[in-house]
Amino acid sequence: MPNTVDTAHIQSLDSAHFLHPFTDFKDLNARGAKVITKAEGIYIWDSEGNRLLDAMSGLWCVSVGYGRKELADAAHQQMMALPYYNSFFQTTNVPAATLAAKLASLAPKVDGRSFEHVFYSSSGSESNDSNVRMVRRYWDLLGQPQRKVIISRHNGYHGSTMAAASLSGMSYMHAQGDLPIPNITHIEQPYFFENARSGETSDEFGLRAAGWLEAKILEVGPDKVAAFIGEPVQGAGGVIIPPATYWPEIQRIVDKYGILLISDEVICAFGRLGHWFAYEKFGYKPDLVTFAKGVTSGYIPLGGVLVGDRVAKVLIEQGGEFNHGYTYSGHPVACAVALANLQIMESENLPERVRTDLGPYLASKYAALNEHPLVAHAESCGFVAGLVLVKDKRTGERFDPDLSVGMLCRKHCFANGLVMRAVGDRMIIAPPLVMTHAQIDEMVALILLCLDLTWQELKTAGYVQ
Amino acid sequence: MPNTVDTAHIQSLDSAHFLHPFTDFKDLNARGAKVITKAEGIYIWDSEGNRLLDAMSGLWCVSVGYGRKELADAAHQQMMALPYYNSFFQTTNVPAATLAAKLASLAPKVDGRSFEHVFYSSSGSESNDSNVRMVRRYWDLLGQPQRKVIISRHNGYHGSTMAAASLSGMSYMHAQGDLPIPNITHIEQPYFFENARSGETSDEFGLRAAGWLEAKILEVGPDKVAAFIGEPVQGAGGVIIPPATYWPEIQRIVDKYGILLISDEVICAFGRLGHWFAYEKFGYKPDLVTFAKGVTSGYIPLGGVLVGDRVAKVLIEQGGEFNHGYTYSGHPVACAVALANLQIMESENLPERVRTDLGPYLASKYAALNEHPLVAHAESCGFVAGLVLVKDKRTGERFDPDLSVGMLCRKHCFANGLVMRAVGDRMIIAPPLVMTHAQIDEMVALILLCLDLTWQELKTAGYVQ
Repeated sequence: MPNTVDTAHIQSLDSAHFLHPFTDFKDLNARGAKVITKAEGIYIWDSEGNRLLDAMSGLWCVSVGYGRKELADAAHQQMMALPYYNSFFQTTNVPAATLAAKLASLAPKVDGRSFEHVFYSSSGSESNDSNVRMVRRYWDLLGQPQRKVIISRHNGYHGSTMAAASLSGMSYMHAQGDLPIPNITHIEQPYFFENARSGETSDEFGLRAAGWLEAKILEVGPDKVAAFIGEPVQGAGGVIIPPATYWPEIQRIVDKYGILLISDEVICAFGRLGHWFAYEKFGYKPDLVTFAKGVTSGYIPLGGVLVGDRVAKVLIEQGGEFNHGYTYSGHPVACAVALANLQIMESENLPERVRTDLGPYLASKYAALNEHPLVAHAESCGFVAGLVLVKDKRTGERFDPDLSVGMLCRKHCFANGLVMRAVGDRMIIAPPLVMTHAQIDEMVALILLCLDLTWQELKTAGYVQ
Repeated sequence: MPNTVDTAHIQSLDSAHFLHPFTDFKDLNARGAKVITKAEGIYIWDSEGNRLLDAMSGLWCVSVGYGRKELADAAHQQMMALPYYNSFFQTTNVPAATLAAKLASLAPKVDGRSFEHVFYSSSGSESNDSNVRMVRRYWDLLGQPQRKVIISRHNGYHGSTMAAASLSGMSYMHAQGDLPIPNITHIEQPYFFENARSGETSDEFGLRAAGWLEAKILEVGPDKVAAFIGEPVQGAGGVIIPPATYWPEIQRIVDKYGILLISDEVICAFGRLGHWFAYEKFGYKPDLVTFAKGVTSGYIPLGGVLVGDRVAKVLIEQGGEFNHGYTYSGHPVACAVALANLQIMESENLPERVRTDLGPYLASKYAALNEHPLVAHAESCGFVAGLVLVKDKRTGERFDPDLSVGMLCRKHCFANGLVMRAVGDRMIIAPPLVMTHAQIDEMVALILLCLDLTWQELKTAGYVQ
């Protein structure tokens, strides 16, 4: 495909009219945005013809890779048959009903608990926002309206609506727009590298970190707590992989106090961690599971909540009308694309491939990155991975945040054909699930190159020895 | 197209797995949902082969009608070229930048104020939720962080996230899930039929209703009020068309106190009221304009906010990073479909056709419905219309709400090939903008038939004389 895009023209439209998400608009306007124009497989191209290996799958979403004609065909076919119809007034559509059944069949039962019901939205934000309403409604119906408090974690990410941003534990988000809303509170994250005590093992730290939940429940008052929400592995917070002891202890605590458990799997579901749903990997039993992103591989907006038996039974049998929903809840085109996407994932066996082949292969490569002089704590889980850029590998001394060392590294990545994300001093990836071993090798070689270039730049500037 | 859908099978999947928006799940499961399977032009078909004239455009959204191949082609082409890329990290895509410029060019300037910027989301809910954060951020940056309160209206509808549902003035929504969130307050709606005093003219009532805003500002404290939000014509509240004096007086009041004005045009923009944006029709000057639905004719989820100069200048020049946004902000496929949809609207001249031809034609037909013994206050505005079902036309006596007279009427509509929505005792429509006069005649004839059948049923049961 020849490049027919006038970069300067698009940049000028962009700068004059498009307020980008999570962006310093003035700063971006001064630089000019890179214009991404096409994509195929695991690669994207900008309007100048530069190819980049997209190790972030767009934004944790393009799991089956770019250029999948099956998905474009599914969208086209459904748009011609029925591009939209609402499901508010006693009507349904075939893709929405079929997808709900499909998702229910993919969600593994744990200890007899199953997920038979789906509440749809168009994003992870809308889904977690719905969770707040659903959880409080559940306790209202059970005659415990005082159970309003939802406990979340610092540096967790659950979206950007007012309620979802309140669940999120990002201090920079709470600093704008009068957040969080009432009755949402946070505990510390299970980030071993940052929060473990000297000499503490990972397993010991995992138990201690889960214990912060129990302490918070007791502080709030057990009869006031409605739910705990967490990502299986924190994504936007920087791929924070919890110790193996963490989730089982969380489960013990939520069971002890009878509170609901919400597993936010917007990033982690649909094969990302090697399972259809990540709660299976970590062995816990959520009551609600948030999904989005991977369900359509990002080709069209769709999100939702898998509603487990415990909550569904109360809402259905005792609830009367649930006064909540979105125009695009159960959008037929979004659901048709999701069905085609799940079909690809099934026929290409992506969750199992990540679990048994690609994930372990990536893990071995990531373990080797720990040899790099700039790197500490490189690790992966399924097909997400992270590492910390450190000033002194031996002592674990970190860089001055003002140096923005992650941004320095990201600049080298972009300039050398690699999309890698910086979260503070953490460099993270979440590649498409369709990689070959050779492509993993290529990606890791690029990562090493960019780490070397970052190291050289820091050395030249005198920031490292 | 032969009907290949197994109705009972889809209904059983639906009932077992799909939690519908704004629905009593148990009640729906007992009835079984009608399965909508295909659509063309202004008609939809269910799985039993029944055709219905869709006088609600899906849910206020399918403005260009069903079966538009241009939109399916645009989606397919963009999905093959670039199905997704994020715009968080200094990158953009061609459809998002181009659409932002297009929307800016379509939004009429008023008194030198223009709308040059767009903040994207995937729904009206997300957009209004973003408005809360944007408005409060604006005042923070101007050194007036105490300006947090947003004033909205009873029976207004602004979406269903926690913040959007708080803006919405639906008491049944606020009854579930601990709503509204703090610092959102409501005034009464400008519903002449219900709220006017005996003998009061529409113009007098409009001024008095707008005055409720000033009273509320004074009650809250003028230095604490951030913004007022309203739909030009209330949609989900039952097509409440304000008196001509209402919006100019609202404008005078927001100007007097310097507060921001948000025009929620999720329903009213893109030709629905005969203009690209409805603030032009009513002659007011908003600072923020919410859009969704019609921007893509519902073929794919997309929403956003047009950000006027006053707010944009502060956010861009003084704001630094705006810590808000959605994964699908500026989704390339959604934006490509929107561009194709606006192209249809332009080439078929839909806003002008509604303003000069279809709207007036519908208005004349609706005026005639006032002759019906069951009908009061039938009126239209552009291509939305409403009427009240009354027990006694002469006195205006209304039916006992427990009778659910609107639902009775809706049942006759569904059974006779017409989709019409009931909001309490109001029957409302928002038809596709592509109707012919003959189709308007056909629609109004169906409405009359269903009003007659409702009247007959009520008479037989002894509810009317």
